[in-house]
Amino acid sequence: MQRVGIIGGTGYTGEELLRVLARHENVELSFASEIEPGQKLKDIFPYLPRFRELALCSTEEAVEQEVDLVFLCLPAGESAKISRLFVDRKVKVIDLGADFRFDDLAEYRHWYDMDHPQPQLLHESTYGLPEWNRDVIKTSQIVGNPGCYPTSVLLAVLPFLRAGIVADSQIIVDAKSGVSGAGKTPSPITHYVESNESLMPYKVGRVHRHVGEMEQELSKQADRPIHVLFTPHLVPMSRGILSSIYFRVKMEIAKSDLLNILNDVYNKEPFVHVLKNGLPATKLAVHSNLCFLGIATIPETDYIVVFSAIDNLGKGASWQAVQNMNVMLDFPETIGLLS
Amino acid sequence: MQRVGIIGGTGYTGEELLRVLARHENVELSFASEIEPGQKLKDIFPYLPRFRELALCSTEEAVEQEVDLVFLCLPAGESAKISRLFVDRKVKVIDLGADFRFDDLAEYRHWYDMDHPQPQLLHESTYGLPEWNRDVIKTSQIVGNPGCYPTSVLLAVLPFLRAGIVADSQIIVDAKSGVSGAGKTPSPITHYVESNESLMPYKVGRVHRHVGEMEQELSKQADRPIHVLFTPHLVPMSRGILSSIYFRVKMEIAKSDLLNILNDVYNKEPFVHVLKNGLPATKLAVHSNLCFLGIATIPETDYIVVFSAIDNLGKGASWQAVQNMNVMLDFPETIGLLS
Amino acid sequence: MQRVGIIGGTGYTGEELLRVLARHENVELSFASEIEPGQKLKDIFPYLPRFRELALCSTEEAVEQEVDLVFLCLPAGESAKISRLFVDRKVKVIDLGADFRFDDLAEYRHWYDMDHPQPQLLHESTYGLPEWNRDVIKTSQIVGNPGCYPTSVLLAVLPFLRAGIVADSQIIVDAKSGVSGAGKTPSPITHYVESNESLMPYKVGRVHRHVGEMEQELSKQADRPIHVLFTPHLVPMSRGILSSIYFRVKMEIAKSDLLNILNDVYNKEPFVHVLKNGLPATKLAVHSNLCFLGIATIPETDYIVVFSAIDNLGKGASWQAVQNMNVMLDFPETIGLLS
Amino acid sequence: MQRVGIIGGTGYTGEELLRVLARHENVELSFASEIEPGQKLKDIFPYLPRFRELALCSTEEAVEQEVDLVFLCLPAGESAKISRLFVDRKVKVIDLGADFRFDDLAEYRHWYDMDHPQPQLLHESTYGLPEWNRDVIKTSQIVGNPGCYPTSVLLAVLPFLRAGIVADSQIIVDAKSGVSGAGKTPSPITHYVESNESLMPYKVGRVHRHVGEMEQELSKQADRPIHVLFTPHLVPMSRGILSSIYFRVKMEIAKSDLLNILNDVYNKEPFVHVLKNGLPATKLAVHSNLCFLGIATIPETDYIVVFSAIDNLGKGASWQAVQNMNVMLDFPETIGLLS
Repeated sequence: MQRVGIIGGTGYTGEELLRVLARHENVELSFASEIEPGQKLKDIFPYLPRFRELALCSTEEAVEQEVDLVFLCLPAGESAKISRLFVDRKVKVIDLGADFRFDDLAEYRHWYDMDHPQPQLLHESTYGLPEWNRDVIKTSQIVGNPGCYPTSVLLAVLPFLRAGIVADSQIIVDAKSGVSGAGKTPSPITHYVESNESLMPYKVGRVHRHVGEMEQELSKQADRPIHVLFTPHLVPMSRGILSSIYFRVKMEIAKSDLLNILNDVYNKEPFVHVLKNGLPATKLAVHSNLCFLGIATIPETDYIVVFSAIDNLGKGASWQAVQNMNVMLDFPETIGLLS
Repeated sequence: MQRVGIIGGTGYTGEELLRVLARHENVELSFASEIEPGQKLKDIFPYLPRFRELALCSTEEAVEQEVDLVFLCLPAGESAKISRLFVDRKVKVIDLGADFRFDDLAEYRHWYDMDHPQPQLLHESTYGLPEWNRDVIKTSQIVGNPGCYPTSVLLAVLPFLRAGIVADSQIIVDAKSGVSGAGKTPSPITHYVESNESLMPYKVGRVHRHVGEMEQELSKQADRPIHVLFTPHLVPMSRGILSSIYFRVKMEIAKSDLLNILNDVYNKEPFVHVLKNGLPATKLAVHSNLCFLGIATIPETDYIVVFSAIDNLGKGASWQAVQNMNVMLDFPETIGLLS
Repeated sequence: MQRVGIIGGTGYTGEELLRVLARHENVELSFASEIEPGQKLKDIFPYLPRFRELALCSTEEAVEQEVDLVFLCLPAGESAKISRLFVDRKVKVIDLGADFRFDDLAEYRHWYDMDHPQPQLLHESTYGLPEWNRDVIKTSQIVGNPGCYPTSVLLAVLPFLRAGIVADSQIIVDAKSGVSGAGKTPSPITHYVESNESLMPYKVGRVHRHVGEMEQELSKQADRPIHVLFTPHLVPMSRGILSSIYFRVKMEIAKSDLLNILNDVYNKEPFVHVLKNGLPATKLAVHSNLCFLGIATIPETDYIVVFSAIDNLGKGASWQAVQNMNVMLDFPETIGLLS
Repeated sequence: MQRVGIIGGTGYTGEELLRVLARHENVELSFASEIEPGQKLKDIFPYLPRFRELALCSTEEAVEQEVDLVFLCLPAGESAKISRLFVDRKVKVIDLGADFRFDDLAEYRHWYDMDHPQPQLLHESTYGLPEWNRDVIKTSQIVGNPGCYPTSVLLAVLPFLRAGIVADSQIIVDAKSGVSGAGKTPSPITHYVESNESLMPYKVGRVHRHVGEMEQELSKQADRPIHVLFTPHLVPMSRGILSSIYFRVKMEIAKSDLLNILNDVYNKEPFVHVLKNGLPATKLAVHSNLCFLGIATIPETDYIVVFSAIDNLGKGASWQAVQNMNVMLDFPETIGLLS
């Protein structure tokens, strides 16, 4: 039994972490912190089967606790600062925010419009996509848990870049997300009456902060610059992301060969399912750590379309964070994550 | 062509008024005011077919305009104050808020927790339920447009009180409302992710402010005190109210006789439909000024259930306000209201 | 590790059983049968973490399998027939349908319009509401898993009948259900466009088949006939039931005393939560075996309102079935049911 | 007052036609036919303000009626056959199906997998997109009302093809539709529980029947073959289409110049709104004949994205059909269509 804590425990990613950890037999929750401490977890999340009597503590109290690993659910900039305190005490850190997703300080500055508060910590941190770098995650002090959109896109595109069949340096990603991706703070756009029965694009082009993260990982794999033409849409559902991804391939290639490229990578992966027939719907992936991939070729063109469905709070955030924890704490990787 | 104005034009009732008035051939919109004036209506509501170039004005500018009638979409207390300015200039007033719904100052104080700012104006005002008092509305200077829940309940229950068959002095109203009933201001409860895929009761008992208004009108019709045991629920849909209303009747009475009681009242009414077969779904009433009524008897008991479906922004607010306008300005009552 | 099977594995209750059992460490699934056998479970439910390679079998094949317990997800009448085959082989049976919910054959005939096919089996069967009769369930050969509406109502009302404070013999239940309660077969009413953005009552009065089941259990507890005035509504959400229950109490009684009555019964129950403050929303209960109860008194009346929220597929069906299984197979009662 | 009729009056496009025509002051409805005739319109659509007492007739009765214009809401193949009967009697025809959308018989055969039943009628028919060919529509005997997806795409892309700035011969259309686009017949995919809270692609590539129609009109305008890489998605909402359209332009071009290209075409159009700021959400367009267009450029690439939002039953079907009727019967084009 190892001890974990959560900083920022009452947003959607914090709440989902609590749900998943409450079913995880190998960990005990030592603390969950919040700006307004005091309430017991059962008063806020009365459905929790464990941790019910634990009271939310302040960040100051949190950093004093003895734990093996801490999850950070904080805005950009704040995670890095507080990470220092945990790392100095040899506590492992999983940041569900953006502070440890970038290799390059200039990129971080470009996308988050601030200087990284703890640049030296980047040397101890790893981008936490276990299917692609679990070996490094295993020994990392800090893991930057990937963003929701990037998770869906990287799992879908990396295999084709690795196979060397992508003709374009521009990849079109038309992504659709449920509203929980916009967070828990009420706003005019996420007001029920405004989001319901409507669909809209936002932050189109190469504007959304997740573009930097996607381009970094795709370019590394491709060993050349990849541009992501990224169009996120807000969809009237609570959870789920579907990314519809368009790119050209270098040669005519059968659907079965494309499926093989995916299967070669994900065949043994417990959380990535490649659909042989049919295309993924987000309902397959919600409330789970699963990613579903599907492919369509387009006759008389050299384009293919790859579809990727995840739960933005599942594989796209908190469930993947627990997967990273399992890797870092040397648990069986699927423990607590059977959906 | 008569001239009208709207004070408070950008909340949901204001927006719906604009939609309806834009299709109304007999009126011109002279102004719409808002706390933050300046924007043109087409910039906020780009779908409007008329009034597009009109800029939102301040309340100060609004009260200077020459109009025949003004709609007030304001919080309790504020309508009464500003009404004085219009009434003094012989402008007719339709208040979509609560300031002119009460006959009794003590009741107003009880439910709205303030003294009525213009008590003398109550003598010039009428409760605006046209099916029940259009003759008085026609000559009123001020009309208090009924609340959404009260509209659904009164249309359903008044006929039975008038017929003298209601045994109880306690009527149970289990009401369900779409989320637009909670207004346009974002809040944790009406955040998409919180309202979606969930149903919850709120302000149960005799707590909701609409109770006072319902009890006033029901008691007047019954000529004895009627208590409304009122349970509103928030339903994951944008619009629509269904009230399921339970009371006992004095004698065994066939469903056909109950339907006759409703038909006697509403036979010639263009906006109230009594369903001979089946029960009303809210989808029949949304985006319209319609109210659908249905009845069920309960074998081996003396209870009946009356169901009433309206659009909370339609017959429950802005469309009914335009119906009142039609009556007050001596237009054909259905003009502009064919849904 | 015990072996279980499912007859009728691809409807919503069957699917939900598969989801729950796949996370249950103490059981192995020996079979799942369907009218059209052949497909592997992973082809229909690709998200399942276990049982993926198991192929759907025919009922004929199913009854030959060696199992310890079988779940039946079948229409009324069919469960009873097939139960005989399992019972004769000492296999325990949990019927998610209606065949083993009635003590009285005439009641069964009245509500299901047929003669019970295996009346003698009623002597070996128990109504499976574990919070109220787990001792009998433990030793039963057959358990009739309660209906979704009855589960929500019984958990809310039985404590007050036991406490002897219910004044009425008529209880009003205004219940609201998500659409999965109507099953998986497409129909005009459950077509997305018809159910979405609408709310409607159906089978009002004492018409719905669940009335018989509720009245049986309530009357037994009250030791006098209790009539349930039952109004189910269809709500635009996939899952969840909220029952708003109205009855009069014999004396003036404080809310705290009412809460005590509930707490006396459910204090130690892992799956029933009594809300001290606030009222239950269905979102608290979905995807779980939980029931949330809340209470409102109504000033100046002798009515109280009890609210009960469950997941119709959770505590209202498949999760409760697994709870019954845990009791019958002598597992810890919460195993596999931490939501 | 002119007389119109509807063949196939009870599907979603027929129902929406009835709603719109009931508000149209210049027409009287002579008949609405259905496979199962007999019911009065008020029994099926109790909210209709007009035509309430009209009984559904058989097709045989319908073709005998004296009308000026008939709307056909029929499957492919059937419209063409019945059109012959009306055309021979000089009745104008608006087909909401696919039989009169193709110039080329081979294309029709390819996409609809049958020989056109009345090829000679194609000489008298016009593709009914009024913004682009209202002069021809005005004198046509038959109008093929465009499909929902094609309407959204053509209004967005034709201006850029006309301006000659499109570099590609392949245009990527990532389209998202509400569920009413799938029609009124219940099916597993459109069952509420399946569609709700999920998003999925279907008929990806160049498979969907609307591809042929889009490519025909785009290629004509471009005067070279244009391929549409078309990916429709089903979105959990009742109405609305958003098409997100990607193509490369020949030169670097400012957003303001792109907007000018749209405004040059649509400046005076009452039903097409070009958004100067922001991007269209489908909620702007539902329950109307409006199309909203918006543009995004993508820095460091030569791609632009055009967004087009309509109501699939509005501008995408029945409202556009009434717009065509207005043109054909020489009414003011906006009459009855102010939303």
